[in-house]
Amino acid sequence: MNPTKNVLIKNGCVVNSTGQTQADVLIVNGKFEHIAADIPVPDTCEVIDATGCYVMPGGIDVHTHFNIDVGIASSCDDFFTGTRAAACGGTTTIIDHMGFGPAGCNLHHQLEVYHGYARDKAVVDYSFHGVIQHIDDAIIDEIPSMVDEGISSFKLYLTYLYKLNDSDILRALQRLNEVGALTTVHPENDAVIAQRRADFLTAGLTAPLYHARSRPPECEAEAIARMINLARLSGNAPLYIVHLSNGLGLDYLRLAKVRHQQVWVETCPQYLMLDERLYLREDALKFILSPPLRDVRDQDALWCGISDGTIDVVATDHCTFPYQQRVALSNGDFSRCPNGLPGVENRLLLLFSAGVMSGRISPERFVSLTSTMPAQLFGLWPQKGCIVVGADADVVIIDPQASTTICHSELHDNADYSPYEGMECQGKIRHTLSRGETLWSQGKFTGTAGRGHFLKRQPFNYSDF
Amino acid sequence: MNPTKNVLIKNGCVVNSTGQTQADVLIVNGKFEHIAADIPVPDTCEVIDATGCYVMPGGIDVHTHFNIDVGIASSCDDFFTGTRAAACGGTTTIIDHMGFGPAGCNLHHQLEVYHGYARDKAVVDYSFHGVIQHIDDAIIDEIPSMVDEGISSFKLYLTYLYKLNDSDILRALQRLNEVGALTTVHPENDAVIAQRRADFLTAGLTAPLYHARSRPPECEAEAIARMINLARLSGNAPLYIVHLSNGLGLDYLRLAKVRHQQVWVETCPQYLMLDERLYLREDALKFILSPPLRDVRDQDALWCGISDGTIDVVATDHCTFPYQQRVALSNGDFSRCPNGLPGVENRLLLLFSAGVMSGRISPERFVSLTSTMPAQLFGLWPQKGCIVVGADADVVIIDPQASTTICHSELHDNADYSPYEGMECQGKIRHTLSRGETLWSQGKFTGTAGRGHFLKRQPFNYSDF
Amino acid sequence: MNPTKNVLIKNGCVVNSTGQTQADVLIVNGKFEHIAADIPVPDTCEVIDATGCYVMPGGIDVHTHFNIDVGIASSCDDFFTGTRAAACGGTTTIIDHMGFGPAGCNLHHQLEVYHGYARDKAVVDYSFHGVIQHIDDAIIDEIPSMVDEGISSFKLYLTYLYKLNDSDILRALQRLNEVGALTTVHPENDAVIAQRRADFLTAGLTAPLYHARSRPPECEAEAIARMINLARLSGNAPLYIVHLSNGLGLDYLRLAKVRHQQVWVETCPQYLMLDERLYLREDALKFILSPPLRDVRDQDALWCGISDGTIDVVATDHCTFPYQQRVALSNGDFSRCPNGLPGVENRLLLLFSAGVMSGRISPERFVSLTSTMPAQLFGLWPQKGCIVVGADADVVIIDPQASTTICHSELHDNADYSPYEGMECQGKIRHTLSRGETLWSQGKFTGTAGRGHFLKRQPFNYSDF
Amino acid sequence: MNPTKNVLIKNGCVVNSTGQTQADVLIVNGKFEHIAADIPVPDTCEVIDATGCYVMPGGIDVHTHFNIDVGIASSCDDFFTGTRAAACGGTTTIIDHMGFGPAGCNLHHQLEVYHGYARDKAVVDYSFHGVIQHIDDAIIDEIPSMVDEGISSFKLYLTYLYKLNDSDILRALQRLNEVGALTTVHPENDAVIAQRRADFLTAGLTAPLYHARSRPPECEAEAIARMINLARLSGNAPLYIVHLSNGLGLDYLRLAKVRHQQVWVETCPQYLMLDERLYLREDALKFILSPPLRDVRDQDALWCGISDGTIDVVATDHCTFPYQQRVALSNGDFSRCPNGLPGVENRLLLLFSAGVMSGRISPERFVSLTSTMPAQLFGLWPQKGCIVVGADADVVIIDPQASTTICHSELHDNADYSPYEGMECQGKIRHTLSRGETLWSQGKFTGTAGRGHFLKRQPFNYSDF
Repeated sequence: MNPTKNVLIKNGCVVNSTGQTQADVLIVNGKFEHIAADIPVPDTCEVIDATGCYVMPGGIDVHTHFNIDVGIASSCDDFFTGTRAAACGGTTTIIDHMGFGPAGCNLHHQLEVYHGYARDKAVVDYSFHGVIQHIDDAIIDEIPSMVDEGISSFKLYLTYLYKLNDSDILRALQRLNEVGALTTVHPENDAVIAQRRADFLTAGLTAPLYHARSRPPECEAEAIARMINLARLSGNAPLYIVHLSNGLGLDYLRLAKVRHQQVWVETCPQYLMLDERLYLREDALKFILSPPLRDVRDQDALWCGISDGTIDVVATDHCTFPYQQRVALSNGDFSRCPNGLPGVENRLLLLFSAGVMSGRISPERFVSLTSTMPAQLFGLWPQKGCIVVGADADVVIIDPQASTTICHSELHDNADYSPYEGMECQGKIRHTLSRGETLWSQGKFTGTAGRGHFLKRQPFNYSDF
Repeated sequence: MNPTKNVLIKNGCVVNSTGQTQADVLIVNGKFEHIAADIPVPDTCEVIDATGCYVMPGGIDVHTHFNIDVGIASSCDDFFTGTRAAACGGTTTIIDHMGFGPAGCNLHHQLEVYHGYARDKAVVDYSFHGVIQHIDDAIIDEIPSMVDEGISSFKLYLTYLYKLNDSDILRALQRLNEVGALTTVHPENDAVIAQRRADFLTAGLTAPLYHARSRPPECEAEAIARMINLARLSGNAPLYIVHLSNGLGLDYLRLAKVRHQQVWVETCPQYLMLDERLYLREDALKFILSPPLRDVRDQDALWCGISDGTIDVVATDHCTFPYQQRVALSNGDFSRCPNGLPGVENRLLLLFSAGVMSGRISPERFVSLTSTMPAQLFGLWPQKGCIVVGADADVVIIDPQASTTICHSELHDNADYSPYEGMECQGKIRHTLSRGETLWSQGKFTGTAGRGHFLKRQPFNYSDF
Repeated sequence: MNPTKNVLIKNGCVVNSTGQTQADVLIVNGKFEHIAADIPVPDTCEVIDATGCYVMPGGIDVHTHFNIDVGIASSCDDFFTGTRAAACGGTTTIIDHMGFGPAGCNLHHQLEVYHGYARDKAVVDYSFHGVIQHIDDAIIDEIPSMVDEGISSFKLYLTYLYKLNDSDILRALQRLNEVGALTTVHPENDAVIAQRRADFLTAGLTAPLYHARSRPPECEAEAIARMINLARLSGNAPLYIVHLSNGLGLDYLRLAKVRHQQVWVETCPQYLMLDERLYLREDALKFILSPPLRDVRDQDALWCGISDGTIDVVATDHCTFPYQQRVALSNGDFSRCPNGLPGVENRLLLLFSAGVMSGRISPERFVSLTSTMPAQLFGLWPQKGCIVVGADADVVIIDPQASTTICHSELHDNADYSPYEGMECQGKIRHTLSRGETLWSQGKFTGTAGRGHFLKRQPFNYSDF
Repeated sequence: MNPTKNVLIKNGCVVNSTGQTQADVLIVNGKFEHIAADIPVPDTCEVIDATGCYVMPGGIDVHTHFNIDVGIASSCDDFFTGTRAAACGGTTTIIDHMGFGPAGCNLHHQLEVYHGYARDKAVVDYSFHGVIQHIDDAIIDEIPSMVDEGISSFKLYLTYLYKLNDSDILRALQRLNEVGALTTVHPENDAVIAQRRADFLTAGLTAPLYHARSRPPECEAEAIARMINLARLSGNAPLYIVHLSNGLGLDYLRLAKVRHQQVWVETCPQYLMLDERLYLREDALKFILSPPLRDVRDQDALWCGISDGTIDVVATDHCTFPYQQRVALSNGDFSRCPNGLPGVENRLLLLFSAGVMSGRISPERFVSLTSTMPAQLFGLWPQKGCIVVGADADVVIIDPQASTTICHSELHDNADYSPYEGMECQGKIRHTLSRGETLWSQGKFTGTAGRGHFLKRQPFNYSDF
């Protein structure tokens, strides 16, 4: 396919986070060229009929883990299968959270590794979040050059192998803030998890439910409150909470937002659509992830946060370990099961159906949650995240009249199951374009490995948006 | 059936609002006689096996409208069909909101009418809420004798034919408070409804959706805030808000509760389970009621209120007009359709399934919402609302392992449809006993018309509970 | 004094709502010409030394009642004494709430009357809020021409002689919204006041304390919630609540703001600085106003609202009736005492001292509360409310090192007392300039009657600010 | 004085946390014998005229530090001067927070030391909070015997020499909960303090203001949220937050209380009455304590918490280091100044004046904050904390008509200054009785060293109150 070919999307309802309008969209050389009613069809132009459909900015999934090595296993989606699935689900940009490297490695070590992972594989445009696995003067000094290379956000962990303590976190937050990088954090209290896990294992309580019991909502909420306050104390460093799963943490975030603190929060479809009753099923290992699935009360609370505007972003934390591998590795012990769920292909449709079609949110707010805010927070805006003249022509076309039943056999990742198997969604992803090139149409993937560009992201700049 | 016969309920999990325990329950002469583990089976005793089931206080539905005449029609459930349906759904007490009488009639007029309606018909025990359709000195003077006759709660309307203005409301609240009566209120702003309805009808917007649009959430929330403040200003009169349907009203109630005001609130299954998308269906007239169904955001907010304890009671507002009648009367104009939904038979199971089985609430909280709080607020406690020695042996036995699909053809009211048709519920009502007598067992109604007693209710007394 | 003369303010700290900077300010022809460090002194230029002082936009008091006729009396400050006092206190613009006219009069009637009141009297620039004392088709039709003449805000009353009912309010809100006018409202529940006042008078409870008891906080809070919801239901009409005095009303406003409703709120120094214990003093009649002074809990809550940003504006509701007149008219009966407090001269200093110097708010927030938000909400921005090149050179210079004891004998209104008598304020109003002309300097008033301009205000436009 | 003598308190207004009544109070053998109107004067009975006064349960100050050794200094009030001051201020029971012992010492070590400190010195009844300065199996095993000896509450520190980490805290909370002890905690984030203090000292910023800047509100709020969640995760262990000083921490506590968590919170008069502007005064070292004084916004927020019921207890954290010692030790460096303020004698009067007399709280709520809740939370109720027949006759008589100016020269502690010097209080402590014995009357201390009893406290039992 020739990306310089013109494309005209006719008769759709064009939605940005700021409004919607019935309009045609003309794409030239991979950029939006013209947006208006009744644009005449140019010569040699591909025409896409979007009658009755929403024409939205392509999805941006700022939380994936392709190729990640978690010690006991590596996730089975690489940058080809992962971004292929993304494209088929309407997502045209991903920002991957790099995994840990060898003990003591510098920041560029993993960046090199991940450039290697993505370069010839990615179907859609991509970037990476840096990861800070230890703090010393050398790391502090290395941060600016990473930002210069387009890595303007970093992840800290409060649990897992390379958790940081409060002093390290303060140093990291201050430095990242100084150089225009956004701090993202996996917030769970390590001491709580360690104690509960040890208690359960000692007591022989190794069933999947005890995975959830070992990381209860308060374990996450505590860490969220801690990070909010440490960020405030670090020159009001901007902070982004990933994969929020519970209502108490949301309440803490509300308090911070009311005080005008620069804090943003992401949740994921699994926390909106699934709940901890699944840990009682035979195939409960399919749902092991951290934070774990919560009860329906937390689900209700998260939906309120989606509706009232407290939650800023919906991403996936896509991290695929096949069910067979989970069974084999865990061998009856939840603590040996690798953590993570697939979902990069389902994000848009799940939120569209349960959010927009249910009446909880407007199409505009859907775009904000899935594309505009991710672009603004992570230095991609206005190149990505909006349908305006001059921006990259990344588009997803959703048909609200059609419906889709999620079925793993029709998905494009490398998993052997879907956590959403059998779910009925109102809506259908009709078409995905990345820089004007069709990647998904009429139920067919039409992209190619390696066509995705690395995105050198701008420094964090709140006043931009 | 002989109500003096002994009954022994074996091996169930006995649930009160204050806790649960594995125990047997012995009933003698229609009262709870003994609650303990492993009670030996007495001679000539009916034994009910409740293994694996919850044994709970029979449901108390404090909001029904049997026989009600709303001018354009009368609801088609009388005290026989209505209480039969109640019994089959596990509800053993109802308190009916009396309808308006002739203009200017006194309070006893309707009480006489309703005693007449219920006397030979009621299958379960019953009482009535008084209705205040106008205020003058005679009405004010008549209130105490109503309370003496067991009518210790009254309803005020802020809209409909006999709406009260603020001055009347203040007088009513003060007097009711003085004599130990609880004020309940239908809170909707009449001016808003009148204006919007007129605007829609003038514009020819007569479809069912405009019923909802004519009474938006803020129309209800305004009236709730007004009543909260007028009650506070009337010597802190206790106040009970009926059929809450929206989240903003809930927020107002939260503020009042935080300030330790004596205010309580009821919602109904229809506001938890159904939403306004139904007004776009062909058979939308089935769902005309006031307040109308809301969007899913309000539903999420109400569930949060159920979970966090802000909502005190779940009742039904059962008020049956057959679908055929709705179609005929409205003839394409929502404003001519009688208002109200059936549901007295479905309340317990819907809340059990979506509340308890989903993990949102505990069985104890379920009992509080459906039986204990209703009994305490409306002067029936501890005769009703708890499984303790000496109380009336009203029991519902629910099996959490079985499931039920709601199907109107299997219900026992007089409607020609169910708003919940086709809904799958986790749980099954196995058995209903009223004063020790089985009314529902093995899917069969075994009660009789006229066996229900009128309940002379105690004055409102907050310190009792 | 020649307003075309140049003025240079040297060495002050220039404060806008958006930030502060050490800078000089050059004024030419009554406009800000240049703002920068170390501006050289031009020829024939008056120089004002502001070393150690804040140089702020002149105060805008959007709530005064000069010349008002309240039936039993007329306020004793006219547009000369009132605006003279304003100028001496650092306020360079006032927007007066016009009083009621004869029954049934049209909107222009009062506008003419007030133009007459102000024309040759006003020392500072001025405008008027329209008042809607009844609603009919003629009034509805007349509104646009008022807006055209610069009256882009109107007042509704929910109590007093010309209170509006809910239907009228809905009509007013809709129409005002359509034509770009901001609705302001005096929110108190009339039925509550009428009932309580009658009860107290009947019982012989006529002392000043019963003025407060007849209009308790919930009486105001109810009306606020009502207006919030009616505004929401009137096409989301913008709404401005005047003289908030209580914490519950503030909580209702917080809920509305969290829901992104266009609602703003004003409080007054008397509600921040004085409390209802004053009604027990011998000279309690000095403090009769509506809403009345509240208890210290409400004061604490209002200060929280000032600090956290919920409260948008501080105005005065300046309305002067001499103490001797109060005593004479009331003759022992609170209900015969005219309502209102003076304060136009004290607003800035009271808020500066108790707000800025206490550490509760920043100088920027002080400017926002007293000048910028008033200008933005009421169609005067950016001509007024900010120190930027091209804006009117209205300036107040405040010295934070000096202190002031409030003493009525040194004030410039026409009252015979000050409600703030004896209060110590940290700070001193050093200088007031209106369009470059000095009105107050070295403790002397140097303005002249009639120099103030009528301000033709722009329509309300939220997106402007 | 003979404690077995009868005492009759005549004509006062007897206040408990549950209500007030005009009554006489007869004391026999140090216990309340009879409470009724117009008790006849028995023979040989001391009569106290309480006309016009409040007769309240003697104050219980659950937070003092007498004799404490903080390494660089020891507080200069011992159990004689400290409890003498308490008695003169109306406080009849104190619970002292024991200081740290030698590294690695067991729990009984400090208990022995403190019994030694108090035995022959205490004027009023007393107990101690245990302190947990490290966690190991031996400490865990020793806890129950401490509870058996009446030490049913313990303190954990999150900063200072013997701070605990999260794992230790979890162990402590669980064990204390199991054995009926209440966990109290000093909540400040140690890493934040360490980093900021080091930064300031490195930069030469050693003035007293930097003491406050090194421990900002978020540093405390973070630790409060952490403790709330760790307590929730430790079997819902009851938790008591000491010396709350900021509004964000209060908001976190509100969220926990709304979720029905067993958490209580104390503030101190210094956080209600003083603010951080004092750190700019010449004698700023007088006000060095931790947490430090905050700004007036936090003060406003705390008063809201007092008024609305969120704050449960007002105690003092009395810990006296003379000003001369502060100056000498710090020698220009805040970090060398010992921390703590005196105040045990001023607590009741300050709160009475600024709380009750201002109208913020009722006399009943005052009693709850200063006596009843302390007694209930710390195992002294109903022996202490209420004026009921059978309870210890601990009484404070407060005259609301008189006023008091705080002047250190008239206080009875061992300090050389008062942080409240010159403050005017409405009210006067007329009389203090401990077990019927007058300790303070007509401005004279009449108690004796060693008469105070050690109080063996009951285990924590929430259902008791």
